[in-house]
Amino acid sequence: MSTNKNCIVRISRYKNALNRLKSLGFVKVFSSNLADATGTSSAQVRKDFSLFGITGNKRGGYNVDDLIEQMNQIFGKHLVHKVVIVGLGNIGKALLRYKGFEKESIKVAAAFDIDSSKFNDDSIVPVYPLEKLGEFIKENEIKLGVISVPDVAAQQVFEIMKKSGIKGVLNFAPISLNNESGVVINNINLEMELENLVYYVIAAEKS
Amino acid sequence: MSTNKNCIVRISRYKNALNRLKSLGFVKVFSSNLADATGTSSAQVRKDFSLFGITGNKRGGYNVDDLIEQMNQIFGKHLVHKVVIVGLGNIGKALLRYKGFEKESIKVAAAFDIDSSKFNDDSIVPVYPLEKLGEFIKENEIKLGVISVPDVAAQQVFEIMKKSGIKGVLNFAPISLNNESGVVINNINLEMELENLVYYVIAAEKS
Repeated sequence: MSTNKNCIVRISRYKNALNRLKSLGFVKVFSSNLADATGTSSAQVRKDFSLFGITGNKRGGYNVDDLIEQMNQIFGKHLVHKVVIVGLGNIGKALLRYKGFEKESIKVAAAFDIDSSKFNDDSIVPVYPLEKLGEFIKENEIKLGVISVPDVAAQQVFEIMKKSGIKGVLNFAPISLNNESGVVINNINLEMELENLVYYVIAAEKS
Repeated sequence: MSTNKNCIVRISRYKNALNRLKSLGFVKVFSSNLADATGTSSAQVRKDFSLFGITGNKRGGYNVDDLIEQMNQIFGKHLVHKVVIVGLGNIGKALLRYKGFEKESIKVAAAFDIDSSKFNDDSIVPVYPLEKLGEFIKENEIKLGVISVPDVAAQQVFEIMKKSGIKGVLNFAPISLNNESGVVINNINLEMELENLVYYVIAAEKS
């Protein structure tokens, strides 16, 4: 299937829009409704649907619940996906309590840090020393990892993840990871986003 | 100046690479060094530099400190930019303690919430009720805002920010804000990033 990130991002947006429309009482939607709610065209919506084999009675509109169910299948919502979080600074700690994981059927299996004061075997999410990361990933067959360590440590953590079988990484460290494997890395670079905003704000003030 | 977001993102990357090269002892760099460190071409580096009026002796290489200084000017590092954070859930609270703001010369002027148990006038960063947001932005001439409220509240917060003079917004709410103004919005949608990763992990397991 020839899918790219933009296409999958659009499916995510359709799904979010559908959930909102559902909460407004919608039972049926047309491709043009979804196009309006997500800022794309009806033709694009139908093209994306056909690419992912999403079906429905187009003439009478799509059934909202059916569409949501089909999209949940695409995103594996019927399975629970385990994730490890490495690095319990401010961002890592916030992620430990982040409600959004549950919505994506993601369960935080464990967190890892180098600071022994953070280790905790009893809490709902155990916190282990970094040395145990590789072993834990293998034993628990974890496929998803979050990197929220400082930039200097990020590549090393990524190498351990890659070797142990992680397939998808959400990277918060402000660094581009060297990645010649098939691991998918999604970067969230807060510093770069902030820098970028400041640039536009300054430009707006000058003009 | 015809600049787009990708171009500014590349300048951010060059700057990050320069800071790392500097910490390794580099005094001079060539455009090819920066191209290698950021995964682009030398021609692109030189094109970006010329677009932003970044100068240097190309034949003998660029002076690292000069380049960093010129890039800091572009990103307004010589000024302090004030930001307000609206919504003190897990993400908002983590941002209050986020060290990266300082690196970008950004100071958190105040935070806002609807939960009165979070109000605090005495802390380094005061926390005020949401009703005071518009007034505070105007009085303190704030240009940058962070939205870290639940999706249902995000549009309303954005409208207040826009009306009060905010020019750049970092939006963590998992929703596309309706924006017909000139305000720049950078979205960080954790749920969508996670969903996207899960999709690729499932696809990798099937193949």
